[in-house]
Order: sequence, then C-alpha cells, then structure tokens
Amino acid sequence: MSGADAGPLFDRLLIVGLGLIGSSLARRAVADPAIAREVVAWDASPSVRARVAELGIVHRVASGAAEAARGADCVVLCVPVGAMAAAAEALLPHMAPGSILTDVGSTKQSVIRGIVPLLPPGVSFVPAHPLAGTEHSGPDSGFPTLFEGRWALLTPLEDGDAAAAGRVARLWQACGAMTREMDAAHHDRVLAIVSHLPHLLAFTICGTADDLQDESRSEVLQFAATGFRDFTRIAASDPTMWRDVFLNNRDALLEMLARFTEDAQAMARAIRWGDEAFIVDRIVRGRGIRQSLIEIKQA
Amino acid sequence: MSGADAGPLFDRLLIVGLGLIGSSLARRAVADPAIAREVVAWDASPSVRARVAELGIVHRVASGAAEAARGADCVVLCVPVGAMAAAAEALLPHMAPGSILTDVGSTKQSVIRGIVPLLPPGVSFVPAHPLAGTEHSGPDSGFPTLFEGRWALLTPLEDGDAAAAGRVARLWQACGAMTREMDAAHHDRVLAIVSHLPHLLAFTICGTADDLQDESRSEVLQFAATGFRDFTRIAASDPTMWRDVFLNNRDALLEMLARFTEDAQAMARAIRWGDEAFIVDRIVRGRGIRQSLIEIKQA
Repeated sequence: MSGADAGPLFDRLLIVGLGLIGSSLARRAVADPAIAREVVAWDASPSVRARVAELGIVHRVASGAAEAARGADCVVLCVPVGAMAAAAEALLPHMAPGSILTDVGSTKQSVIRGIVPLLPPGVSFVPAHPLAGTEHSGPDSGFPTLFEGRWALLTPLEDGDAAAAGRVARLWQACGAMTREMDAAHHDRVLAIVSHLPHLLAFTICGTADDLQDESRSEVLQFAATGFRDFTRIAASDPTMWRDVFLNNRDALLEMLARFTEDAQAMARAIRWGDEAFIVDRIVRGRGIRQSLIEIKQA
Repeated sequence: MSGADAGPLFDRLLIVGLGLIGSSLARRAVADPAIAREVVAWDASPSVRARVAELGIVHRVASGAAEAARGADCVVLCVPVGAMAAAAEALLPHMAPGSILTDVGSTKQSVIRGIVPLLPPGVSFVPAHPLAGTEHSGPDSGFPTLFEGRWALLTPLEDGDAAAAGRVARLWQACGAMTREMDAAHHDRVLAIVSHLPHLLAFTICGTADDLQDESRSEVLQFAATGFRDFTRIAASDPTMWRDVFLNNRDALLEMLARFTEDAQAMARAIRWGDEAFIVDRIVRGRGIRQSLIEIKQA
C-alpha cells in the first residue's frame, strides 16, 4: 500500500456515540494524523458531549447532528444497535455524496435491515464490528489501544462499494486491529456463540445467585473466587447495549441457547445417573477447546 | 495465640495426593518450620511420587501408604473427592491415636459420609476445603502462595474434636488463608452455585461450540476474545476432579442447575417477546452482583 504519503485516510471523521468504543476510537484517531485531519464527536446526550469536550479526546464536539454530518467524509456509528437506525436517520440527509457511513454494532443483520432503506444515493454504508471491549462503559472508559491485536469484522453489502469497505478496513488496521470480511448472517451466528450466549449465561447466573436466600447470597459474594467471579466480570457490561444485542440477534441467540440448554440437560442427566464416561468426555472437550485457544494464541 | 514458641504445629505432616492443591500445600509447609518438623508426601501414582522427589518439594516421599501414615500426626487428603474414602481406608488403620485426618475436597457431605464409618477410635477427622485453585493440575502446577488471602472452609463433625479443628484452622492460616466454620450441607449448597455450576456451564458451552460445523468452530476459536474465552479458562480444569465433584454434590448441583435453567428460559422468553424491562432488570442485577464484589474487595 502506497497511500502513506497521500495525506490522511479521511478528512473529517465523525464519531457518533462516545461510549467505550466510540471514545477509544476517538482517542486513537486524534493521536494518529494518518487517520483523519479532523476528528469530530457527536452524542445525543448533552452530558456525554460536555464530558467529551472536558476530556479533550476529539478535535471538536459538534453543535448538532446536521452540522456534524455535513462536512464528514466518514461517519462511524458507535451507539447501541437498537439506536443505529435512528442515529443514521438523523445524519444521512446531511451527508455528502461520496461519504461513508459505518458502524461498530455487535449484530449486523439487524443494523443492515435498519439502515439500508435510509441510504441516499452516493453514500456508502459499510457494516463493521470491532471485537473489542471491557466491562466498563462511557466516555471515560475508552483508551487508544483497545483495538490493538483484536479483530474487526466487516460485513459489506452485496452491492456495496468495495473502495469504501477498503477504507473502513484501513481505519481499523490503523487502530491496530486485524480485519476480515464475512457474511452478515454468518457473523451473527458466530457472535451468538462466542459473545452473546456467554453474556446471557453470565447475566442469568448472577440473577440466579441474587435470588438465593439472604444468607446464601452474602456467602456467594464472599466465596465468589472459584468460578463465579469470572462470570460476574462478563456480567458487568452496559445494560442498554446488551438488551439491544439480545433483541437484535434474537434468532441466532435463541438457537444457540437451545443447543446449550439441550447440552446442559444431557450433562444433568449424566450427573443424575452417574454416567462417568459422558461427564469426562464433556470436560475433556472443554479442555480441548482451551488448548486450541492456547495454540492459536487467543487464550 | 501463644503457640509460636511451642514448636511447630505438627510433628510430621503427611500430604496425600500431590496435585495442584497438595503440591502447593507441600511447598508452603516445607518453607515454614512453624507448620511441621517434617513434611512427607504420598501419592498412589508412582510417576507422581517420582516427580515430587525430583522437584524436591517435600522433606521425604514415603515408600508406602502404611509407612506414610504410621508416624504422621496430621494427614491431609488432597485427592479427588471420589477417591477420598479409598485413600482414607488405606491410611486410617496405620494412624496413631491422637492424630488428625483432614481433607481438601470441594464437596463435604459425600466425603464425610465416606470417611466417618472408617474412623478408628482416637483419630480425629476434620473436613475442610481451601477455596483456591487455578486451571492447571499436577505436582508441577503448585506454588506456595496459592492459599494466600483465600478462604479455607471447615465443616467439623457435630461430635468432632474442637482442638483438632483448631489445629487444622491454624494450618490453613499459616498458609495465608482466612478460615471459617460452616455446616457441611450449607457448604455444598454455596459451592454448588459459586463454583460447581459455573464449571458445569463452562464445560457445557465448550461442548456446544465444539459441536458446531467445522467452519464455525474455527471461527469460535478465532473470535473467542469477547466472552467465550473467559469460559474456556474455567473449563480447562482437571477432568477427574470435576467428574467427582459433580457426582458427589449431585443434589445441590442439580437443584442450582434447575433454578438456573428456569432463569435462562425466562430470559429466552423475554428475548423472544421483546420484554425489554425484564432483560434490563436481569442485566442490572448482574451488574449489582459485580458491584457488591468490588465493594467487598472480592472482584
């Protein structure tokens, strides 16, 4: 690639929604002049806008959605997936032909369904999803290295603009991420098992523990170190974001949960009837998955 | 307590089973002369005995179970809970009156049921459970600080020897642990939710992922970072140990799994029908549990 001397990737990068992901992208983009000449922030929440200005993590906080969109050649939607279409609707009428709209949502089919009907001619939409996060949220929680060594998945539209997809890929690569393209439906299935179902299980076991009688509940907290604690870390994530993810990846998530429930019931039956071989086989397979992760250095 | 000048807590401490817990206890005990004058190891596996001798983590590896038991004033069983009774049966006939038998098993009622009928007069049994561990196993995986700042739960027999229980408590305190006494049945219920159920769920989701079509499976590994990875860490534990835990805490574990499954089904129903308030309530409760852990410094 010989574009390094051709100036920044974008002239004006607009980041919409300054939570963990948006504020991390902002911090990274302002630190790297190769990404954009100007990094602008817009958030529907006045208190988030005020905080972002206070933090000084962008070149400028926009004064309104229309103004924000007008001069941006790339707009990155970093809002919960349930708010993507509304955010796009407020911005798209003001975006110039040739500009790019992209997003960071954890579900891709629902975001595509919501945004594609709104697209004016000349604006390219590139659905994307950086696989990065922590259990923290809000503009204070971001940091510029969040995407380093992580995957950013792109699920370009079938009739989408390949050049626009390439520029979005370069944006995430500039943030330190590895990029890959895949089909949106496939993305949603893979994410259902690697991310959405684990979060659902983690939220659920916390609720189950919370329902125990008061005495046991306090001991659950006291003795959380052996297993339970790891679940609570996952369960500390943002409620609105996760509500939206669950509702927007419903079919894939419910299918994975159904498979999981069948498997858990099979394990329960093996425990009830003392089927040692079945139990050991399941445990050994769990270890095998862990070993594979260590081998591909993702552990 | 004024016993510090009165010599070590035990004369000869015998550790039976040199896995993660046994070898960590051995390493700690040889490093602290206040714990025992001599630390002896016994393991049913010749290769483990050879490795322990090679590692030099005890004063001496016994040449047989009977010889090992004969001069020990404290015997700590660190074998999988399904092997506790057999280990006790081999050792108890050789233990001297006044000596103490204790264990580290993750289930307490089943261990008590197995060992109490075998007890000769004069030998005190103190069921115990240090809540510590990693996903590694075997004599190489232990380290002397494993128990520091962790809980060691004692579930003394109703008619048990309080002085013996006090000495076992001091053993774990000397390893850096905090001790607490509780009823064995209560222990098993609390551990079912904080440890046994999380492990069952982690093993199960790894199996569910392992059953996916080949293409998805490789992507599950590739993109494990967002949630799934934390489950695989839990699922890397020792198969024999966990098989035994599941089978030996069957009733409490199946009850917690049944509660969990009801809660997961309620979540599935809320997702299917778009019940946003229910979903958010569950997520907020998960965060609440996490927040409580942070407040009591167990996070």
